[in-house]
Amino acid sequence: MHLVTLTTDFGARDWFVGVMKGVILGINQRATMVDMTHEIPPGDIQAGAFVLMAACRYFPKGTVHVAVVDPGVGSGRRGIAVRTAGAVFIGPDNGILSWALAREKIKTVRLLENRKYFLKPVSRTFHGRDIFAPAAAYASAGLPVERLGRELKNFHRLPWPEPRQHRGKIQGRIIHVDRFGNAITNIEEDLLLRKGTVAFDVMGKRKVRCALAEFYGVAPLGKPMAVIGSCGLVEIAVNGGSAARRFGLKIGDKVIASSVDTTR
Amino acid sequence: MHLVTLTTDFGARDWFVGVMKGVILGINQRATMVDMTHEIPPGDIQAGAFVLMAACRYFPKGTVHVAVVDPGVGSGRRGIAVRTAGAVFIGPDNGILSWALAREKIKTVRLLENRKYFLKPVSRTFHGRDIFAPAAAYASAGLPVERLGRELKNFHRLPWPEPRQHRGKIQGRIIHVDRFGNAITNIEEDLLLRKGTVAFDVMGKRKVRCALAEFYGVAPLGKPMAVIGSCGLVEIAVNGGSAARRFGLKIGDKVIASSVDTTR
Amino acid sequence: MHLVTLTTDFGARDWFVGVMKGVILGINQRATMVDMTHEIPPGDIQAGAFVLMAACRYFPKGTVHVAVVDPGVGSGRRGIAVRTAGAVFIGPDNGILSWALAREKIKTVRLLENRKYFLKPVSRTFHGRDIFAPAAAYASAGLPVERLGRELKNFHRLPWPEPRQHRGKIQGRIIHVDRFGNAITNIEEDLLLRKGTVAFDVMGKRKVRCALAEFYGVAPLGKPMAVIGSCGLVEIAVNGGSAARRFGLKIGDKVIASSVDTTR
Repeated sequence: MHLVTLTTDFGARDWFVGVMKGVILGINQRATMVDMTHEIPPGDIQAGAFVLMAACRYFPKGTVHVAVVDPGVGSGRRGIAVRTAGAVFIGPDNGILSWALAREKIKTVRLLENRKYFLKPVSRTFHGRDIFAPAAAYASAGLPVERLGRELKNFHRLPWPEPRQHRGKIQGRIIHVDRFGNAITNIEEDLLLRKGTVAFDVMGKRKVRCALAEFYGVAPLGKPMAVIGSCGLVEIAVNGGSAARRFGLKIGDKVIASSVDTTR
Repeated sequence: MHLVTLTTDFGARDWFVGVMKGVILGINQRATMVDMTHEIPPGDIQAGAFVLMAACRYFPKGTVHVAVVDPGVGSGRRGIAVRTAGAVFIGPDNGILSWALAREKIKTVRLLENRKYFLKPVSRTFHGRDIFAPAAAYASAGLPVERLGRELKNFHRLPWPEPRQHRGKIQGRIIHVDRFGNAITNIEEDLLLRKGTVAFDVMGKRKVRCALAEFYGVAPLGKPMAVIGSCGLVEIAVNGGSAARRFGLKIGDKVIASSVDTTR
Repeated sequence: MHLVTLTTDFGARDWFVGVMKGVILGINQRATMVDMTHEIPPGDIQAGAFVLMAACRYFPKGTVHVAVVDPGVGSGRRGIAVRTAGAVFIGPDNGILSWALAREKIKTVRLLENRKYFLKPVSRTFHGRDIFAPAAAYASAGLPVERLGRELKNFHRLPWPEPRQHRGKIQGRIIHVDRFGNAITNIEEDLLLRKGTVAFDVMGKRKVRCALAEFYGVAPLGKPMAVIGSCGLVEIAVNGGSAARRFGLKIGDKVIASSVDTTR
């Protein structure tokens, strides 16, 4: 397939992403590149991990995913390449790959150490260009990741913020706010399945109470609702508006789901 | 050609566009994708319709244009595929395709209903990924749109804001403000052809009067002018600055073109 | 290779970049396009020249680089194509290509005048679409640039802001602020090589003094440092933050490098 995806915090105003693509095409001119996003907030490893996890399952078998949110560049932190049953993941070993990898069947984890596959000279400030892009290019051209370096027993895993269940309630939190102002929670659809009508209380700047709706247009314009979003997680939304702006919701805010007695 | 363009309100910070591309490449690995823009203001169907209309004529024959500004996703609104003499247009049937289609020779309009060409399970919140991207991928790979669903007699058309002509004056309005702050009107170049010198009065926060110039550098720095823009529409511009910011111009503001007696 | 890079001030909200790509693919359907950036501040030729210079060396031999920051579009300013030992550069002759070209071995400079290779009708406001994109498409498909027009003896060169050396000090200035708030100076790594420990004084809104560090993580969190950035230039950075925001640094601010006696 020669398909490479890129997830970074490099933004759009500099040449950083363009240069990574130039390096990749210089090694594998048949590579096709897809930008996942480059607007991860600078240095926000969790935000990058979430995007990669949400997006990677929609790519064909054999895709190479590169993710670079790398505040520790130049220090001792390692770079890794991980081959799973369906894909290859490449990036710094700081946890950015870990939420995506939690759902994958891991075949091998490799240290990026074989300097033959680096762009030289290797800078101390831009491994996206000098180490991760070349590794992705070679992997997309068919080089076995085994050639990139020795096998590692482990890699850095970010803890996934598991929602807590207590007395029939689920306590989760907001883990992403999307472009539309929908506040995506860590509460998976499956957790709700055995329940009846569910009410959600969100502790933003203002407390919000809302019920589960099937799609955005169900609630009256401007009113809040909870929806099962496109990655299977409950999100808090406002029909025709931004839930985040309207209610001051932000990442980390608590969300409590409770069954509601609708017979009253 | 395998060429697919994407016009959405998905922005750059999430994974939504990336995932549409992953789905497309999973179906047609030879697809080439071009981003028209993803910065349509959330839910602004007219803005999406305008961009698609302005841009689509510059793409080669056979291009598949997908446009997704879709506040009604999940509700009863239909998805359609329209084959014209030169292209295929795919999106929700909410008018977003209609301004582009008004200039095309329509061959057939099809309902997107054949679930064989959906990504399953189909979510209630992201038909861009589950319905429109797959339809575009199959169409770009050569599948006749007839296979996507039954023929429709009609589709939703947004009214085009036709300028009014009265007593030798043309009254139009601003329909787009571009990145440079140029305020693009609905007054087509052709309407001005039979006239002599033309003055423009724009009713923004401040009233602006200006004359037609050949290109941006004609007016003194900082001064307003009217120019025939690159899509054949009159636009109000400021040499070296933003007309929109300088004069508080915004979409919907009135623009009046009048012949001026230059013999005085 | 059929590789074309695009550097513009067109932004992301309009269809301008998309249309350039449509024109290119209509001429050379095998073209691969890479966005360098489209977020050059409107009309800022120096910013475009800097990005192109920083990025172009990372692309494979034969790449066609198009750069369009073109406030003089429609006026008498010329369009040029320059073939160097390793690449082709295309854009308005306003200096935007000149910093990149200063490091290249120039083979021929050509005026873009052969209307056979223009998109017709040629607008007065969008030569990116009508002149530069077609020229790039033909060049990427193998057309010798000699066919685009007559040879020119010269082209417009922007002066490079050379740092001054005086009494063992180097006086440079900030020439770019990147997405992370790192303030990139015009002081090249080589200038520092023969020196010992170096201190940097930056005259932003607040005066900053800092020392050279190997990578961003060396300084304590929140503290300023100087780093050799990924394009070989000294940059002022803050570990885990934005040096530009923290110290009010902006393009043009003075930076003085002095040797420091570390034996005290």
